Amino acid sequence: MQKLTVVKIGGKLIDDQQLLKAALTKFAQLAGYKILIHGGGKIASDILNRMGIKPKMINGRRITDEQTLQVVKMVYAGLINKDMVAALQALNCNALGMCGADGSSILAHKRPVKDIDYGFAGDVDKVNFEVLSAIINCGLVPVFCALTHDGKGQILNTNADTIATEISIALARKFNVTSIFTLEKNGVLEDLDDENSVIGHINESLYEKLKNQGKISEGMIPKLDNIFRALKTGVEEIYVTSWLDAVEGTRVTLN
Amino acid sequence: MQKLTVVKIGGKLIDDQQLLKAALTKFAQLAGYKILIHGGGKIASDILNRMGIKPKMINGRRITDEQTLQVVKMVYAGLINKDMVAALQALNCNALGMCGADGSSILAHKRPVKDIDYGFAGDVDKVNFEVLSAIINCGLVPVFCALTHDGKGQILNTNADTIATEISIALARKFNVTSIFTLEKNGVLEDLDDENSVIGHINESLYEKLKNQGKISEGMIPKLDNIFRALKTGVEEIYVTSWLDAVEGTRVTLN
Repeated sequence: MQKLTVVKIGGKLIDDQQLLKAALTKFAQLAGYKILIHGGGKIASDILNRMGIKPKMINGRRITDEQTLQVVKMVYAGLINKDMVAALQALNCNALGMCGADGSSILAHKRPVKDIDYGFAGDVDKVNFEVLSAIINCGLVPVFCALTHDGKGQILNTNADTIATEISIALARKFNVTSIFTLEKNGVLEDLDDENSVIGHINESLYEKLKNQGKISEGMIPKLDNIFRALKTGVEEIYVTSWLDAVEGTRVTLN
Repeated sequence: MQKLTVVKIGGKLIDDQQLLKAALTKFAQLAGYKILIHGGGKIASDILNRMGIKPKMINGRRITDEQTLQVVKMVYAGLINKDMVAALQALNCNALGMCGADGSSILAHKRPVKDIDYGFAGDVDKVNFEVLSAIINCGLVPVFCALTHDGKGQILNTNADTIATEISIALARKFNVTSIFTLEKNGVLEDLDDENSVIGHINESLYEKLKNQGKISEGMIPKLDNIFRALKTGVEEIYVTSWLDAVEGTRVTLN
C-alpha cells in the first residue's frame, strides 16, 4: 500500500503567521500523498466580534447559530483556507482547498438536541473515499477546512480533529496512513506541569495505565480515545506533537 | 470533441435566493461536462458595511484594498461558494468549489498601477487546462468564485466575466465549448429601452453594424468584445441571457 500522511493543524499554528508559514513549509516538504486539515483558530471569534456577533461557547465548544455559521463559512472556507492554499502553491505543493460539501467528500448530520443545542454542528456519517482518492490520484493535495454538509444543502460546522480522524480511517482502507495531530503542548506529557516530560511512545496499555494513575490531562483523553479508535480501524501510526518539533512529539501505536 | 458548458452567473441571480435556486436547478440539469463561475453579488458590500469598511468603487469597479480583499475572500470563496456547492450537491450535481489558487487553476498578476490603483485586482495570465480537465474527468463539476492567485502566495480579485471567458478559451482546446453569460437584461437588445427587443442571434458583422449605429449599450461593448475574442479562439457559441429565459436570450457566433 502507498504511504499517505494526514496532518491536522490548529490553534497557535493558525493564529501566528510565522508559525503557520513554518508548518506549511514542513507540510509542503512531506514526501508522498498527503492531506491537510485545518482548524479555525481565533480569527472566527475576531470576525464575529467585528460584526457585532457574540461568540457563544458552552463547555469550551462553540455553539453554531445561524449567524455564527455564516461567519465560520466565511472564515474557515474563505479566508483561512484560500490563504493556506495560495501559500502552499507558492511552496510548490499542489493544494486544493475543500470543505466536506466539495465532491460530497464528508457527509454529516446536524447534531440532535439533547441537553445542549449546538446549532449547526455536524457529526460525521461518511467520508467519500472514492472522491478523495480520485483527487489525490490527480496529483492534488486536499486542504480541508472543518466544514461538512448534510447532502440536503446545509453546511455544518464540524470539529477539525474529528474530520482528521475520519479521513484517516477512511483512507486507511487503501493507503498506509500516518496521521499527525498538532497540539499546543509538545506531545503527551508524563508530568502535566513539565512541558519537557513528553512521552516518546505510547501504546494502548500504557495509555490505560497512565489514565488510571490520573496522569493524562482531561483535554487529552477524548483526543487519545479518538486516536486509538483510528488505530483500531487500520491507521498505522499517529503522532501527537506541536508539529514544529515532530520528532520530539509522542508516537501513538496500538501495541 | 466532447461537449462542455461554461456558465457564468452574477448580479440578481446571486442576490435573490429564489432566482439562485432556480438557476442552480437549471445548471444541475445541464447534460455533459460543465463548469459554473459565480460573481459576488451585493453580499460583499453588505458584509463590508457590517464590518465598518466602506466599499470603494471607481467607474463602477471595486477597488480591492487589503481589508476589502479579506472580505471578498470570505464572501466569494467561503459564504457564496460553499452554499452554492452544498445546494448543487442536494440537486445531485457533484460540485467542487474552487478559486484560482486551488490546483493553481488560474494564475494572474496584480494589475499594474497606471491612472488608478485597483489594489489586489488580478489580470489573468493562464488557466491550467490540465488540472481542470483532470478534475472534470473525475466526474466533478468545478464551481469557481472570482478569485485568482499570483503563484507567490497572493490571492487576487478578478472579474467573473473575465474568468468565465478565460476558462472557456482554455477548455476549447479539447472540448466543444458553449458558454452562457447571464445578464440583468434578457439578452442583447435592439432597442435599449425595450426589454422585449432581444436580438435572437448576433454575429460579428451585425455587432459591428449595430455598434456603429450606437445601438449597443455601453456596458455591453466590453462584454461582447470579450465574447468575440473567445469565439475567435475556439469557443463554439456563447449565449447572453438572463439565464432563466435561456431560449429567449441572444446567441452569439462568429459568422
